[in-house]
Amino acid sequence: METYPITIGGVTRHVPLIEPLPGRRIPLVEFLGDPELVRAAAEALKPLVPKETEVLFTTETSPIPLTHVLAEEMGLPYVVARRRRRPYMEDPIIQEVETLTLGVGEVLWLDRRFAEKLLNQKVALISDVVSSGETMKAMEKVVLRAGGHVVARIAAFRQGTPGLEVLTVAELPVL
Amino acid sequence: METYPITIGGVTRHVPLIEPLPGRRIPLVEFLGDPELVRAAAEALKPLVPKETEVLFTTETSPIPLTHVLAEEMGLPYVVARRRRRPYMEDPIIQEVETLTLGVGEVLWLDRRFAEKLLNQKVALISDVVSSGETMKAMEKVVLRAGGHVVARIAAFRQGTPGLEVLTVAELPVL
Repeated sequence: METYPITIGGVTRHVPLIEPLPGRRIPLVEFLGDPELVRAAAEALKPLVPKETEVLFTTETSPIPLTHVLAEEMGLPYVVARRRRRPYMEDPIIQEVETLTLGVGEVLWLDRRFAEKLLNQKVALISDVVSSGETMKAMEKVVLRAGGHVVARIAAFRQGTPGLEVLTVAELPVL
Repeated sequence: METYPITIGGVTRHVPLIEPLPGRRIPLVEFLGDPELVRAAAEALKPLVPKETEVLFTTETSPIPLTHVLAEEMGLPYVVARRRRRPYMEDPIIQEVETLTLGVGEVLWLDRRFAEKLLNQKVALISDVVSSGETMKAMEKVVLRAGGHVVARIAAFRQGTPGLEVLTVAELPVL
């Protein structure tokens, strides 16, 4: 399998190149299962989190370890929007993600008792990779619907040109 | 919402009671979003992981932070079976989970390049809560199909009587 070198926080990984659309190859960053890479990325992202931030907000699944380590480092709680409805959810916030590139309808689910943790809070959105920015936009809508205030949009990697302003520390090519 | 106190590694949380089946109430442990609880649980689980363990294996989503912190603490890599097919997967291991209690067919997906990380490895299975043990059994099948060897089955909480032997450090009631 062809690989591509990616570096964040001084740690390099040779990751596989995948082809989500014909003729468009991108490196597949994988934070799940890699504590050293997650630690390096969390350290690199830390300075981007505004001092007034009260809670971090992310989505299932791949950004979870990164957000967890960042939250623990900063002494902050975090909230995770799910990608599937869970049986125990009550009165969840349900937010569509416009993912034209993939052609499949993604949805974010946030159980009400977690939505309550965002109410009147200063929230930083955390992601691993931002590309079109549609997931980030949907996350922002979830926070607003939950009564929170977005103080920063942060991702480890930027890929292409997101449709909104996002703070990132490294770039991924579209080959 | 009615709550129930759960304790692990000296940390207590008052968690919601949910009713997955009529007349059967269980406390809903939530590791996602709670770095302090995850850290305490990881410290409590650490002595249960056999010294010869070479890789940890878990499933999406709720056990991910626990497994991540445990892996980082022990200097081990970990592998995560997904609950949904991801577009980039090639030749994945697909394993049904027999979940009679929920009545819905759950499936574990493990991309081949992660399955390769289990080949000939001594693997400890990690979960947050074990109840019927069916997910744990499916995890074990995935490891065997990937050519790995299961050296331990470990969960933070036991709930009821699992259908196989699992090491745990705390118990959840069925009320």
